[in-house]
Amino acid sequence: MNCRRCDRKASVHMRQHKLALCKEHYLEWIPEQTARFIKKYEMFAHDEKILVAVSGGKDSLSLWHILIKLGYQADGLYLGLGIDEGINYSHESQRLTEEFAASHNLKLHIVDIEKEYGQPIPVIAERSHRGHGKPCAVCGLAKRHEMNRIARDLGYDVLATGHNLDDEAAVLFGNTLNWSSEYLLRQGPVLPGTAGLARKVKPLCRFYEREMTAYAIMSGIEYIYEECPFADGSQSIFYKESLNQLETARPGAKLIFYLNFLEAKKSGKLFLEKNVELANLHPCPRCGQPTSTPDQCSFCRMIEKTQTETG
Amino acid sequence: MNCRRCDRKASVHMRQHKLALCKEHYLEWIPEQTARFIKKYEMFAHDEKILVAVSGGKDSLSLWHILIKLGYQADGLYLGLGIDEGINYSHESQRLTEEFAASHNLKLHIVDIEKEYGQPIPVIAERSHRGHGKPCAVCGLAKRHEMNRIARDLGYDVLATGHNLDDEAAVLFGNTLNWSSEYLLRQGPVLPGTAGLARKVKPLCRFYEREMTAYAIMSGIEYIYEECPFADGSQSIFYKESLNQLETARPGAKLIFYLNFLEAKKSGKLFLEKNVELANLHPCPRCGQPTSTPDQCSFCRMIEKTQTETG
Repeated sequence: MNCRRCDRKASVHMRQHKLALCKEHYLEWIPEQTARFIKKYEMFAHDEKILVAVSGGKDSLSLWHILIKLGYQADGLYLGLGIDEGINYSHESQRLTEEFAASHNLKLHIVDIEKEYGQPIPVIAERSHRGHGKPCAVCGLAKRHEMNRIARDLGYDVLATGHNLDDEAAVLFGNTLNWSSEYLLRQGPVLPGTAGLARKVKPLCRFYEREMTAYAIMSGIEYIYEECPFADGSQSIFYKESLNQLETARPGAKLIFYLNFLEAKKSGKLFLEKNVELANLHPCPRCGQPTSTPDQCSFCRMIEKTQTETG
Repeated sequence: MNCRRCDRKASVHMRQHKLALCKEHYLEWIPEQTARFIKKYEMFAHDEKILVAVSGGKDSLSLWHILIKLGYQADGLYLGLGIDEGINYSHESQRLTEEFAASHNLKLHIVDIEKEYGQPIPVIAERSHRGHGKPCAVCGLAKRHEMNRIARDLGYDVLATGHNLDDEAAVLFGNTLNWSSEYLLRQGPVLPGTAGLARKVKPLCRFYEREMTAYAIMSGIEYIYEECPFADGSQSIFYKESLNQLETARPGAKLIFYLNFLEAKKSGKLFLEKNVELANLHPCPRCGQPTSTPDQCSFCRMIEKTQTETG
């Protein structure tokens, strides 16, 4: 099959889009599409300061690469989680992130959880007895908290993450199987900012995971190939596998599932308008971030608990 | 494992309910639960006349069996669809339905599509060019039309069908993957009656398919084992297989998916209130059933078309 734009031999075939492109035009197409999604979902403007959460993986490094290519002011934030598990996971992903930033002359903030809070994620998870033996829930909570904190402290307007379609569809699938109203009403490419919380955006939410892999490889981005060693057997991987089976039987099923959901929300024909419960938010007395839990936010309570147990 | 009620050896183990029962108590439990669902979803009262749509399969014959056991006034309706496909499908299912009615001394109405409309379902499907080469869409339309017609003409208050949890969850799964607002807002154990249309209810909607198989076998009901020969490769079977994989990994997933959906609708926290568009309904000039399509209803248009092509 030939490239739709230049008739040379295509390198990427996207059955779900009925589109084939050569390497050169694929590397144009991904940023063009990203620009389209940024505009369509009103993610941010050219004069806004963007903080990109980078993990060293293909999605977040590609996102950073694309935003710079599109002329946005985007700095990086790397969170050192302290995950080793015999493959030096955090160390290696930090090294690749630093190399990417240096080679593209970009500004990268590095925050190390152990330096900030005295313990790496796996230890916090163990001591806090959260998450049924897996550190993933604790890791998610810590990442959200730290990303919000840095974005606020350093004055960024918007926080961008590299979630792709497979990630978003898997979250949607899980929330749908349980019909979790609160999560379903809040899920989307943009989570508006509130007092003390930066807006959150997912510019890659319409790209299949394999499209991002192709982009990273063709762009020569060196990223960490390994998944987080704790991800194995996780809910999200289970949901991704289910969706991949549906996708195999019906190419495009995953995209239709996600886009029709966004459309159903936008059309106003299926879901209620979401009432963001701003009224119930108050600043956490310890970190100052808005929280809906009484007294301290979940993150601060967790940290306090693990530090009490240590001491 | 022993029966929870009498401590004898259990015959049925329901992991999803954490319940095991012996044959005697299982045959009590299913009708008890059905009575509970009828009450919970306000399906019908003891003084209402019920028409049970019976196909000769395990679900509909079991439903009839249970309703009689519970003391309801329930007559049967068998629709002769004229499906043969080398296994004598319709003939055999009619024979088993008639035998069931006779042996339990029940009133059974038999309506034959070919006698009524000149052609069996597969021929109507072929001539009407509906349904992409499969007669399933035409069959569904014809069954809905005929069930409504007979219920109205014979003065029944309510039409009961044998849809089980696997059926309902599969329909819900398909509607969810496409986020079909109209279908999602309408799906449930009860579809209220409107002018000229009997209320429709699904008293078995919370039983797993295997629970109904066990009930039919233990009750000594003779039913047709074969699936409809046209069902192979259908959407609904594809969705059932996906859900069965989820269920295998997480016992109870199918029931949670369906019940949480009903709960989300009832709670009013996720979905809009459904506006039944009664205003747009008018009686079909040919059959008199309420329809939202301009002029004749879909069924009558289909029949007219096939008869024109014949003549």
